[in-house]
Parts: sequence; C-alpha cells; structure tokens
Amino acid sequence: MADTKRILLVVAYDGSDYHGWQAQEGKKTIEGELNSAIEKLTGNKTEVISASRTDAGVHGLCNLAVFDTDMNIEPSNISRALNSILPSDIVVRRSLEVDADFHPRKRKTSKTYRYKIDNESYPDPLKTRYAWFVSYELDIDKMRQAAGYLLGEHDFSSFCAAGSTAQTHVRSIDSIEITKNGPDICIDVTGGGFLYNMVRIITGTLVDVGRGRIEPENVKDILEARDRTKAGLTAPPQGLTLMNIEWDM
Amino acid sequence: MADTKRILLVVAYDGSDYHGWQAQEGKKTIEGELNSAIEKLTGNKTEVISASRTDAGVHGLCNLAVFDTDMNIEPSNISRALNSILPSDIVVRRSLEVDADFHPRKRKTSKTYRYKIDNESYPDPLKTRYAWFVSYELDIDKMRQAAGYLLGEHDFSSFCAAGSTAQTHVRSIDSIEITKNGPDICIDVTGGGFLYNMVRIITGTLVDVGRGRIEPENVKDILEARDRTKAGLTAPPQGLTLMNIEWDM
Repeated sequence: MADTKRILLVVAYDGSDYHGWQAQEGKKTIEGELNSAIEKLTGNKTEVISASRTDAGVHGLCNLAVFDTDMNIEPSNISRALNSILPSDIVVRRSLEVDADFHPRKRKTSKTYRYKIDNESYPDPLKTRYAWFVSYELDIDKMRQAAGYLLGEHDFSSFCAAGSTAQTHVRSIDSIEITKNGPDICIDVTGGGFLYNMVRIITGTLVDVGRGRIEPENVKDILEARDRTKAGLTAPPQGLTLMNIEWDM
Repeated sequence: MADTKRILLVVAYDGSDYHGWQAQEGKKTIEGELNSAIEKLTGNKTEVISASRTDAGVHGLCNLAVFDTDMNIEPSNISRALNSILPSDIVVRRSLEVDADFHPRKRKTSKTYRYKIDNESYPDPLKTRYAWFVSYELDIDKMRQAAGYLLGEHDFSSFCAAGSTAQTHVRSIDSIEITKNGPDICIDVTGGGFLYNMVRIITGTLVDVGRGRIEPENVKDILEARDRTKAGLTAPPQGLTLMNIEWDM
C-alpha cells in the first residue's frame, strides 16, 4: 500500500465568475472546483483545507490548499495534472509535499491584499474586471495620512461587515502602501489576519478621504467608535486580490 | 431646423466577447453596438465610419468613429449619454464635433498596437483574458534584433493572413519596442497601416525567434520570401490591443 502524502497547492484564480472560495452546495466556488478536480484525478472524494476564504468576486494569486492522497504521483506533477482538469480561470501554480500535520490556517501567517482603483474620467473597459472605477479626483497624500491611523493592533469593528462570526475584532495591520501610476492606484495591505470585508471597507473609507468627504484625522475617530456605520462604503469585490501569504514552513 | 453636426467618438472596448469591430448581420460586434446605441439616443438609424476594424477578440483603447446628427445636444455630452446605453465593455471616452468632411480612414494616420505576453511557467488567470500565455523562455535581445529587420517600408506578404483583400502588401513600420517587466512582455508596433493579422503574425514569428526556433537574421529571408507559410504562427487575438491612433486634425 502506498504511503499517504499531504500535498500543498498554491492556487491562483480569477474570482469574477465564482461565489467565492468556500465550497457551497449548488454554487460554483473555487474550492468546489478544486475538490472535484482532485476527485477526478485521485478517484477519492476530497475536501481541501485552505488558507483563506476569499469572498465572491475576489481574486487570488496564491491561496493555499492542502489534501491527503496515497496516489502514486510525483507531488510536483500534481499541479499540471490538476490544471488539465480545472477551468482556465483557476490555475494551480505549484504543488509540493508537506508534513502530515501541516495546516494552512493553524500557522502564524502574514497576508497581503491588493486593492486596485481605476481613477480617470471614463472607465477603461480592460480594467473593469479587476479594478474599481472611481472618477473623483483623489488626494493620495491624504489617503496615505489616513492609512497611518490604521497601522498596528486595533479593534477593527468599524471596518468589519455585519455577519462576522469572529470572536474578536482585534487585528493587526503591518503596512498599507498606496501607489499611483497614471490612473492606476494600488492599495497594498499586509497584516496577520483580516475580518469579513475589512480590506474593502478600509478602501471605501480611504477613497472617501481621497475625495474630501472625510478628513484623514477622522479615521482615528472612526476606528475608536467600533461602529461599522461610521466608516465608508464597502468597495466592490472585483478590485481585490489576495497577493501573497507568508508563513513559516 | 437644427444644423447637422459631425461627431467624432473615441471608443475603448474589451473585445473578448465580440466578433470584432465591424458590423455583421446577426453577430455581436463593437460597431453594431455603437450603431444601435446612437440610434437609441438620436432616434435615427446610423452607421458610423470608423478608423480601424479590429479582429474578433482584439481590444481597443482609442478606436475612432464618426456619425452625423442634427440632435440638439452638446457634442461633449454625447459620450456620457452613449455610455449609459452601451454595455459596460464598450466605453466612449470622448465625443467632440469635427468638420463635416472629417473621415477617419481618409487621413494619414499612425497606429500603435500592443501585444502582451504572459511569460512564466504557469498562466496567471488574471492575465489570460488580455495576454498570450507562453511558457518557453524567451530571449528578448534576439527578439529585438529580429524586429529590426521589419522596420521601414517592405512588402509584408509573409506577415499577412490569407483572405487579405488589400491591393498592395507594402506597408511601413516606424518602430517595434519590446519591453519586459517580470513575466510581462509587451511588443509595441507603430506604423502607418497594417495588413490582416499582421501584428499577430509578427508576434508569433518573434516568439519563435525568442524560443530559438528561428534565428533573428532569418526574419530578413522570411520577409523577402513574400510567403505567409515561411513566418511563424498567428498569435491569438486576446493579447492584442489597439493603443493609439495619431492623425492630423
């Protein structure tokens, strides 16, 4: 009998046409497609364990999923085998064997999300799928100043969507970098963990600052209010991409 | 009775879901959508005159279309009015009044096309819609050397798809710039006019050079052969975007 191996997959996906990562009965999800591709490959019903459950319409370049198999296949070749089964908007970029007790959510990780904004008078149709079109002129310096108040450990209740089941709303943000290249604005947020819609509410609030509806220093008050209604709107999902997960192997 | 005005539209579009620019009975085309949006706005049946008829699946950031109307509307507001009617993958970026004899194809213009290549081991699903995935390692210096043979005026029969109805295959290329930024390779081709599939066949040939199947100096022989079968394959449409049209007003 073959040994059981635990396989780690690094998964990239265009989330546009999916009801998010997490498998849901009767809905098209990234995890559901992965489970069914692995089942086709190995012949065994599988439910992967994953690092991050991105929302409907959100993209990912490096989500992590693990599963166990006793199939006799070189672990590094599993990516190619799965890609031949998966739809083209989901790509396994890497597959490797990890320790049998490896669990992608039970490790201290740092995640980086990027939120993209298309900031010009008219939307660029080649960007609408992967960015939020904002026609208002945005003051990037003020947005950076506002972002400064969010760094470090805080109770982020004001930046958490209703429906969160998290036991605590205390999270820590390591960095928020805002870059502008012509009409393209990127907001890169790195932290140890994020609440439901947190990066999208941060983005909506920073855009309110950028267009002058909120002063940068008000973000401190919004944070301290611990009240979702005080922050800006939730930016739409298509601008958000999970860029990177760093963790100790 | 209102004066008739000639209106110029600058049009951007994601060509993924269209049978190209040119209106065709019973097929979804960019021009067809434009004609019908203008008809809804003005109440008059319209056929725009356009600068460039891009192929099925090819994108555009600045195609030009003109039409005549005696509608009483500020010309600069027509873009916004049309955008409220058009599907979201077609955007009129600008509308303005031009001389009554303005014709976008009867002027000396210079066009720039960009061909995008995603060059890594696995395709990035956020790029597949707008780039050609090529996993072979490409030698950019050799590609640049090969491109040098294509500059200037030549008979480009080797780089023209069968089915061309052009009276002459002599065209002039002003510049070919190849840039690489991580896995992203851009080939920017500027010239006075292009034959059917010309930029895509040039790209296919340059990729053959980059991966070592053709030596750079062979491109000179391919050009002189005036024989389509000597050049490389036709790169797929989704990587190509009409970036810019320059013309004398």
